[in-house]
Amino acid sequence: MIKLGIPPGSTLDLDDLAPDQFEEHVTRRLSEIVSHFRDQEAADLVLKQEDPVLYDVYASERPALDGELLYGVTYLYPGKIGSEYFMTKGHFHAILETAEVYYCLQGEGFMVLDTPEGDSSVESFSRGKILYVPPRWAHRVVNTSNDQTLVFFFVYPANAGHDYELIAARGFRKLIVEEDGHPAIIDNPHWLCE
Amino acid sequence: MIKLGIPPGSTLDLDDLAPDQFEEHVTRRLSEIVSHFRDQEAADLVLKQEDPVLYDVYASERPALDGELLYGVTYLYPGKIGSEYFMTKGHFHAILETAEVYYCLQGEGFMVLDTPEGDSSVESFSRGKILYVPPRWAHRVVNTSNDQTLVFFFVYPANAGHDYELIAARGFRKLIVEEDGHPAIIDNPHWLCE
Repeated sequence: MIKLGIPPGSTLDLDDLAPDQFEEHVTRRLSEIVSHFRDQEAADLVLKQEDPVLYDVYASERPALDGELLYGVTYLYPGKIGSEYFMTKGHFHAILETAEVYYCLQGEGFMVLDTPEGDSSVESFSRGKILYVPPRWAHRVVNTSNDQTLVFFFVYPANAGHDYELIAARGFRKLIVEEDGHPAIIDNPHWLCE
Repeated sequence: MIKLGIPPGSTLDLDDLAPDQFEEHVTRRLSEIVSHFRDQEAADLVLKQEDPVLYDVYASERPALDGELLYGVTYLYPGKIGSEYFMTKGHFHAILETAEVYYCLQGEGFMVLDTPEGDSSVESFSRGKILYVPPRWAHRVVNTSNDQTLVFFFVYPANAGHDYELIAARGFRKLIVEEDGHPAIIDNPHWLCE
């Protein structure tokens, strides 16, 4: 790897990324996205005990105008519902032709991507990696660590909006589950089934 | 400060941010932006010896379409020309009504901002801090450390473009110089003078 004139092993302390830099805070609990998980029995068992927080999103607030940007940081916690890892809800942008940039600050997992036409892609996502979500691609992040929070910074056009409906209705084509102690990418048996 | 469920002192290793994630690489040397510095005699003396690299920019490549984004990382090295710290060239966006997001990964310095109408702002910029450059604001980053490279991640609309002309002609209203061993924000004596 090319060295860039920075001392080897230079580090960014995540504690420096103070949440008071962000106007918005959204906490997502299991009950809000429970229908997205494959194993509904396992989900029900968890919900009888508690309604765990799957992730926290801290985000900026800007006018929804062309040329403006929104940015923030997501803390996706480690855990599983049955064999399926904790994940974000996942969405298309309401203005479909808008991109998003993700930069992973900590942890490891995957990004799962789908187009409205049914194309699918799964990208590994770990500390230091930047992922570009091109226009038209729905996106979901999955944390495959057993103990570490997946932390990522994101930026997208402020007028992009979110469309959660299509994903809620048909799901993503691929699921990320634990098999034999390791993450596995499998076909979603319920894809397209409402 | 609120704790976010991540272990205190969690760190991001900047070495993980591999430059092979970026298609573009621009190296800016003193000779390319020498007219921006206040002390032309000091600059001439430096250039007689060498033409130092002030910064390296690694950036993505995407179509210049509305909804697409560009992203990258800048390594702005420590140093001074006379008493004025190393800085980026600085620019407006060609499409003026486009924003930019900066996220500082290492180091310390300032962002200097101007509008076409002559409004001016100077923001401190250090590790962990996110700066939002609203539409219409020209921006330049200045590294005020004596020994540390200022490293920052940036994202902006892919159709924004750059307009370096106005800044090259009139400069920014404020300069960042060393006075008594510390950074000082002073009026640019040559502002508006071509």
